[in-house]
Amino acid sequence: MTKIIVDCFGGDHSPQAPVQGALDALAQNPDLYILLSGDRALLEKELEGKNYDASRLEILHAPEVIGCEEKPTDVVRLKRNSSMMKAMILLRDSDDVAAMVSTGSTGALVTGALVRLGRIPGVIRPAFCPILPTMDGGLVGICDSGANVEVTPAHLRQFAIMASLYLENVYGVKQPRVALLNVGKEPEKGDEIRQETYQLLCQTPCVHFVGNMESRDLLSGRYDVVVADGFSGNVLVKTTEGTALELLKKLKKEIYGSPLYKLGALLQKPMFKQLKEFMNYQNYGGSVLLGTSKVIVKGHGSSKAVAVQKCIEQAYRMHISHLSSQIETEIAKYEHYV
Amino acid sequence: MTKIIVDCFGGDHSPQAPVQGALDALAQNPDLYILLSGDRALLEKELEGKNYDASRLEILHAPEVIGCEEKPTDVVRLKRNSSMMKAMILLRDSDDVAAMVSTGSTGALVTGALVRLGRIPGVIRPAFCPILPTMDGGLVGICDSGANVEVTPAHLRQFAIMASLYLENVYGVKQPRVALLNVGKEPEKGDEIRQETYQLLCQTPCVHFVGNMESRDLLSGRYDVVVADGFSGNVLVKTTEGTALELLKKLKKEIYGSPLYKLGALLQKPMFKQLKEFMNYQNYGGSVLLGTSKVIVKGHGSSKAVAVQKCIEQAYRMHISHLSSQIETEIAKYEHYV
Repeated sequence: MTKIIVDCFGGDHSPQAPVQGALDALAQNPDLYILLSGDRALLEKELEGKNYDASRLEILHAPEVIGCEEKPTDVVRLKRNSSMMKAMILLRDSDDVAAMVSTGSTGALVTGALVRLGRIPGVIRPAFCPILPTMDGGLVGICDSGANVEVTPAHLRQFAIMASLYLENVYGVKQPRVALLNVGKEPEKGDEIRQETYQLLCQTPCVHFVGNMESRDLLSGRYDVVVADGFSGNVLVKTTEGTALELLKKLKKEIYGSPLYKLGALLQKPMFKQLKEFMNYQNYGGSVLLGTSKVIVKGHGSSKAVAVQKCIEQAYRMHISHLSSQIETEIAKYEHYV
Repeated sequence: MTKIIVDCFGGDHSPQAPVQGALDALAQNPDLYILLSGDRALLEKELEGKNYDASRLEILHAPEVIGCEEKPTDVVRLKRNSSMMKAMILLRDSDDVAAMVSTGSTGALVTGALVRLGRIPGVIRPAFCPILPTMDGGLVGICDSGANVEVTPAHLRQFAIMASLYLENVYGVKQPRVALLNVGKEPEKGDEIRQETYQLLCQTPCVHFVGNMESRDLLSGRYDVVVADGFSGNVLVKTTEGTALELLKKLKKEIYGSPLYKLGALLQKPMFKQLKEFMNYQNYGGSVLLGTSKVIVKGHGSSKAVAVQKCIEQAYRMHISHLSSQIETEIAKYEHYV
């Protein structure tokens, strides 16, 4: 039985979405055991009248609430009884708890992971690795996308190693093609960090490095992993999501503005439905935090039940693939200068 | 009469696109005088049989060719007779030449501008400011988007001042709303550079600073100017273009895959045509290099004639609005620590 904690507060649709996502994951996977973290009374109310296997569900009472404006360091230091921090401390202290899923504050999650949970031996900094769909039907992982706004070449090399192992083990991508996000293809492009990282990745046999990638090629299907500092990686992911959403919105507005276009869209209904599903990030699970001593998956703040369910399944696959010990083994092969 | 030099080599469609673009601009604007820079024989051949006012067109013979792989510094140092460098030197030395348009190497253009042309007094670093269309029919300028991969808060403040004046004077945007590209809205988000810049922009009365912008909001229409370092600004612009193009490509592929969808698209033909025009960056001119002592506009390498024409018109509008002297006046009001 694999035990996973679900932080039920902090997201936009809390606690409904986390609770329903947990129940759906539980129904799909008989090997799962779930702990719901949060205020017991609110969670019990949310569970009322729902059908589930009560022998595989437990509530972890965590009554404190994290405010929107609270600093991550304050949350970690002062809010030990919040749904996120209590979950993290239990994750650290219980050998039989494998992973944690949260849709709460990103900053608090990263700080908490560093301060309370700890890293895989050898890992300098954990990094987020969200997954986006490419236009040829594949996937691409972007690592880092927000945990570290400042990085060194050594960090970036570790991100490349961790994300490669993640794509290979959890998504079955054989020998993932790894690119470095840069402002041009040539090795001498970008700042010193990029130039050094380019050379470093060329000297890292366990990484199938294919060179620099310009951001316009992200969805081309030519790359499985893109390595970036947390600042530009964040810009890369959010710009992609934002542009896609804005364009779909514009298309919809145009179509609704004309009866003829509407008629055309009626004929294309299955296509638009498929396109919308394809572009719905809720279908691609969360952003895993690679490099922490136990598995942490961060869902979008706006996650609905289906997204939380995907996050739980992702955490489960990460755990059973023994990703952490593989990361430890590979990372140990390289010098850890910072 | 306003004299503008057009670098006719270096782009993907050289010299056809620059020459045709120049002739079209000339026909539209009786106040224009154009110098075509490049190999005389090739340019004369390209002009053969074309209709134009020969009293307002001149060839600047520049026979040297810049190779794809050449380093910017080598181009600037060694290729003084290339179409780009000869144009730049003439621009520097001739009081009556106002501006230059090029679709050639970005690196050579930036290095050449710094080494050969020089900056507006007080400007620390010139910066690119391309323009993208927003979903509400407006425009947004992104400064910097590739000239400076490393920046300080003082740089970023100057980018904000220059881009504000640009949007106001060349596009008629009253009191442009300026945002700082960051990984979150709150003032304390991002690295130290972002945090300091936030404070600095709050203390800059000539900039209408509205706070941090997350990249997913670029096309929302809520911002007129986005200030960024050249690395993440480049990622922002290219990801937007890339995602839009990939999505349109996917849509087209889907439509062509089904007779029913094709029929629907037939009814929507005007909409798709309009959408394609809306998203065609060739319609929005080039990326101006703000802060150089004379006007430089950089067109996409893939620019066709219409894009070159727009770049020339943009350069013309920049010149007649006396943007440079306005930038000099505003910049002089602030301390220039680096």
